Amino acid sequence: MNYPMTRYALGRIIFINGLLMLPSILVALIYGEGWQGVYPFLLPLFLCLSGGWLLSYRKPDKPDFFMREGFVVVGLSWFLISAVGALPFVISGCIPSFLDAFFEASSGFTTTGASVLSQPELLPHSQLFWRSFTHLIGGMGVLVFALAIMPKIESDNVFIMKAEVPGPIFGKIQAKVRNTARVLYAIYLGMTLILIILLIAGGMSVFDSMLHAFGAAGTGGFGIKSNSVAFYNNYYLYYVLAFGMIAFGVNFSLYYALLGKRFREFFHSEELRWYVGCILVAVAIILFNTRQLYDNFFLHLRDVFFTVASIITTTGYTVADFDGWPLLSHVVLLCLMFIGGMAGSTAGGLKVSRITVYVKSALAELRTSLNPNRRVSLTFEHKPLSSQVRSQFSNYLIIYLLTFVSLLLVASLSVPNFISAFSSVAATFNNIGPGLDVVGPAGSYAGLSDLSKLVLSIGMIMGRLEIIPILVLLSPRTWRRI
Amino acid sequence: MNYPMTRYALGRIIFINGLLMLPSILVALIYGEGWQGVYPFLLPLFLCLSGGWLLSYRKPDKPDFFMREGFVVVGLSWFLISAVGALPFVISGCIPSFLDAFFEASSGFTTTGASVLSQPELLPHSQLFWRSFTHLIGGMGVLVFALAIMPKIESDNVFIMKAEVPGPIFGKIQAKVRNTARVLYAIYLGMTLILIILLIAGGMSVFDSMLHAFGAAGTGGFGIKSNSVAFYNNYYLYYVLAFGMIAFGVNFSLYYALLGKRFREFFHSEELRWYVGCILVAVAIILFNTRQLYDNFFLHLRDVFFTVASIITTTGYTVADFDGWPLLSHVVLLCLMFIGGMAGSTAGGLKVSRITVYVKSALAELRTSLNPNRRVSLTFEHKPLSSQVRSQFSNYLIIYLLTFVSLLLVASLSVPNFISAFSSVAATFNNIGPGLDVVGPAGSYAGLSDLSKLVLSIGMIMGRLEIIPILVLLSPRTWRRI
Repeated sequence: MNYPMTRYALGRIIFINGLLMLPSILVALIYGEGWQGVYPFLLPLFLCLSGGWLLSYRKPDKPDFFMREGFVVVGLSWFLISAVGALPFVISGCIPSFLDAFFEASSGFTTTGASVLSQPELLPHSQLFWRSFTHLIGGMGVLVFALAIMPKIESDNVFIMKAEVPGPIFGKIQAKVRNTARVLYAIYLGMTLILIILLIAGGMSVFDSMLHAFGAAGTGGFGIKSNSVAFYNNYYLYYVLAFGMIAFGVNFSLYYALLGKRFREFFHSEELRWYVGCILVAVAIILFNTRQLYDNFFLHLRDVFFTVASIITTTGYTVADFDGWPLLSHVVLLCLMFIGGMAGSTAGGLKVSRITVYVKSALAELRTSLNPNRRVSLTFEHKPLSSQVRSQFSNYLIIYLLTFVSLLLVASLSVPNFISAFSSVAATFNNIGPGLDVVGPAGSYAGLSDLSKLVLSIGMIMGRLEIIPILVLLSPRTWRRI
Repeated sequence: MNYPMTRYALGRIIFINGLLMLPSILVALIYGEGWQGVYPFLLPLFLCLSGGWLLSYRKPDKPDFFMREGFVVVGLSWFLISAVGALPFVISGCIPSFLDAFFEASSGFTTTGASVLSQPELLPHSQLFWRSFTHLIGGMGVLVFALAIMPKIESDNVFIMKAEVPGPIFGKIQAKVRNTARVLYAIYLGMTLILIILLIAGGMSVFDSMLHAFGAAGTGGFGIKSNSVAFYNNYYLYYVLAFGMIAFGVNFSLYYALLGKRFREFFHSEELRWYVGCILVAVAIILFNTRQLYDNFFLHLRDVFFTVASIITTTGYTVADFDGWPLLSHVVLLCLMFIGGMAGSTAGGLKVSRITVYVKSALAELRTSLNPNRRVSLTFEHKPLSSQVRSQFSNYLIIYLLTFVSLLLVASLSVPNFISAFSSVAATFNNIGPGLDVVGPAGSYAGLSDLSKLVLSIGMIMGRLEIIPILVLLSPRTWRRI
């Protein structure tokens, strides 16, 4: 491994993470929180700026930056920024335990939205802002971000990009990494701005609109009220947020296509069709399954549609306590947690593109089993899928399942029952947020043991980075000097 | 499809299934049950013999028998024999509802051992015998059996064999199908006989020994007492049965190797090592996790070892109500349910060989992700794994997961909670028997809705036949005339 280069890149990321604390300080000043509001950010700010500056002070001689270095930088930086990001919560006393604060911060950066706070409205504005702002930062990946505004590293950054952007990418968008990051970033911020404006138009306060838009943009979903979005109880806001979440679960390269007026590419996207199909099927099943719980159809549709949008995009805002829904609805929601959003979006989960390829592979295998001599070729997005890509996809599924089972085994040491353990791992590993039973919409992760919180935090980071960068950190081979 | 040939093969199988009811009639006579004991078997016997004879009366002109025909014969015959096998229960009034009886019979033939009876000791001897005898029949597959004693079909029966024998086969054993079937069958019956003798030597009655040996041989596990094997409360019997179950979970081609004095092949089997490894790890974890529930170490070890042996071999005999164990033990047991026994054994589940290949693929993928240009080759049983076999394996995993989720969705319509729904599907689809909570060792499947029972019955047959033959039945393409 190229240690100097890795050190340099980590330094830059930490430095930028420090700068990203400045808006929270501004919020503290705007809301007149004074020294009480400002000082929790000063120590971490100082740590980030000085530490980052020290690490990246000396430019490395050899700018070699390969897969290995990319994985290490990505893997380590998510742990580092979560640890630093936890400090404001600890110093302010909002979340006194460092482990709880680390859980909250990694939940923020990984855009999970699982919280140890049962009453977030008790937090001062600056803390609430920082908490939701981590979603915005995490959303497109703090590193794509860093990449876009960090023009100094001269070598090829495609490896960071590859390790960072969630889901396999099927587009020409990644041709030029730095430009790509800027374009993605512009789309991302533009859409967030539109969402803020639409929420303000619906009567939500500017502060609340910003925080909710951050959560939707990153598909994070930290609620800022103890009953999350249900607090607002407003059809317009619900639908704006639901469609907002769905929009951020779409592959960003499709927006790139729209900007380039390549409408055909957008509307012929197979993945988009499957994504919309999953949403419609899930809404239909849950509507039918919960029909006896509601008298008013519009209220019913609103709650179900919002919940499905929130879960499949792995956001995790809640408007209804779906923990009280029947078992079939729970199983459908659990399925959505594993499906997740589209590749190249800010969502977590396995991604719709993988699910599509898995279903196609299964059908092809059935056809082959009848005619063993026939070769069935697969296409995705109207292009043939090479056997190499297919095996990469199925190996990912295997790694994903093995990791899931390992996390479940550790979580089951201290979580009270199977549905809580299973759904807490599903909801954190897939970066959703709320699970079922004790970690359901009405509950919180506060009651879990320290071991569970630590493991689920690691699970969130693994899920966010699609596992492999974190596993690579564990291999001694990675740390060999070259 | 070659309809005459399919009809002919189905006819032979049904005819043989009729003959297999004769021992139960003998049992009824031996135990002096008189007409009451005999008549429940007469109608199904008559149906099988006459129906089978009619279907196979005219030999087909074209003996073409391909994959398609193999799948159809296998798929249909398991439904047919389960339906016919249910009749004695219904006619005798032991299980009045046909659907319940169908569940019990398919649970028997598929060697699942899930029961709707909470007090099997109330059944007459002849009914108990028939119930456990279905395990013996199902064990190595009624079709491998039919194949071995059915020398009249002149064409190549390898396709039935392939659809029938559980798990991928890694051995030279299948070179000559008919001989193979006979060898397997001889090993199977020989081992069953040894187990019967060992159980009798431990003081179990001849009748009980036979029935328990049938259940262990087929890795079925119908208990004949309401508290299953716990009734006997005897160290010797527990360990004999536990090792018996483990022996029947071993790939039969390894016994073939032992018979041929190829000891090296036996002791160098990778799959065997993984199988033993899984058992040891599971025992260790559960021993540690349940340490506070037991005062006596030998009692503790006995219960845990028996339970692990029973679950990983997908037998399902119980000596301890593991439903009262902590969550981690439950999750370990659930994992064992999915792993199952070795390929080419009578066990269900994914099979240890597949798990081994999956784990190796995951490790290879990690290595590849660090060095994308490096090709990592995989071996299994000291032979290279072709990419075709690997993709077959991973496609099977996908089909398996999709089927599991579909079954879970339907089961969750009427099963009261997630752990019951999840474990009932896991325990039937993998052919284990008892699950957790309402379907746990102390419960039964009697309380489930008719829909659940039907779906779980189909699940058992799908699991037993490794899914594909049943899915093929659903494809219109299968039914095209040629």
